[in-house]
Amino acid sequence: MNGADFLELVRRRYSCRSYRPDPVPEEVLTRCVEALRLAPSACNRQPWRVVLVTAPDLRQQLAAEALLPGISMPWVAQAPAMAALAVRRDWFTHRVAPWFSGVRYDLLDPGIAGEHLVLAAAAEGLGSCWIGWIRPHAVRRILGLPGSFKPLALITLGYPAAEPETRSSRLPVEEVCRRNRWA
Amino acid sequence: MNGADFLELVRRRYSCRSYRPDPVPEEVLTRCVEALRLAPSACNRQPWRVVLVTAPDLRQQLAAEALLPGISMPWVAQAPAMAALAVRRDWFTHRVAPWFSGVRYDLLDPGIAGEHLVLAAAAEGLGSCWIGWIRPHAVRRILGLPGSFKPLALITLGYPAAEPETRSSRLPVEEVCRRNRWA
Repeated sequence: MNGADFLELVRRRYSCRSYRPDPVPEEVLTRCVEALRLAPSACNRQPWRVVLVTAPDLRQQLAAEALLPGISMPWVAQAPAMAALAVRRDWFTHRVAPWFSGVRYDLLDPGIAGEHLVLAAAAEGLGSCWIGWIRPHAVRRILGLPGSFKPLALITLGYPAAEPETRSSRLPVEEVCRRNRWA
Repeated sequence: MNGADFLELVRRRYSCRSYRPDPVPEEVLTRCVEALRLAPSACNRQPWRVVLVTAPDLRQQLAAEALLPGISMPWVAQAPAMAALAVRRDWFTHRVAPWFSGVRYDLLDPGIAGEHLVLAAAAEGLGSCWIGWIRPHAVRRILGLPGSFKPLALITLGYPAAEPETRSSRLPVEEVCRRNRWA
């Protein structure tokens, strides 16, 4: 795979909010998780933890109880699979290092790993959507996560029911990237 | 590109700590930044900002002054290009939303976008390395970043001088992923 192929994959990915009920084959889910597992992390601490939810009762419960109120997301319950992404904080990398650098690797790293899962899903022909608008305590309770794990996001997975007519736009490159110095 | 191709790309990527001095062609850098630009983000706020540094004096200055002391990274100065990744905080998504959800999207999102750059680099045959062990104030000063941008990481880019003999290992899948409920 070359650079043009990867760019094509990145362009193919979008936040899918409409899913067919067809289950995702096990080997596809396995490859998506494998892509996540191989992600890089600060000091290779691999702080991410994932629960892959396919059981209908748990998916319904997450959709009903674990999303923040005020935004309607009925499509969440339709997705045949869902990855709950959490972080398990490491004493050195996530508590000591930020005192020096001010950078919170415990959040940067799960972003990296979760996007490996999302791009792997796109490569498999799946739709996906990062959902950050969650109630972490409800996610923890429903999925039996230990208190040491902090839930960060849900990622829906499934075959798209329909392509969206428009894609969300992006800032022009001049607004996000400059050469050598910003100013 | 299918799922197996993407997994092959993920397996090809590693944290490269040895670079040839050859410059990276402009069109290659452009495609890497384009992959970053198209990344998803909470409420599509696209909080990332990037300075692509190729000027030798600025690269030397970053290597000399912007890394935290105590870890020797002489290879940083060898890399012919470097992306300085920063976040520009948005009032709603990055200050109000975390009060409700407890999730800091201002850090999750740059992780996602930075990894688009890193995977694009791998697809182009480039080596790369996330460097989180930075001094944000020095990065800001050297690159002229406004006070509203928070520097998060440097990512070195360049053609690898030598493949490493061993790759860093990963936790077994059973330790990072469970099905339906964690416990």
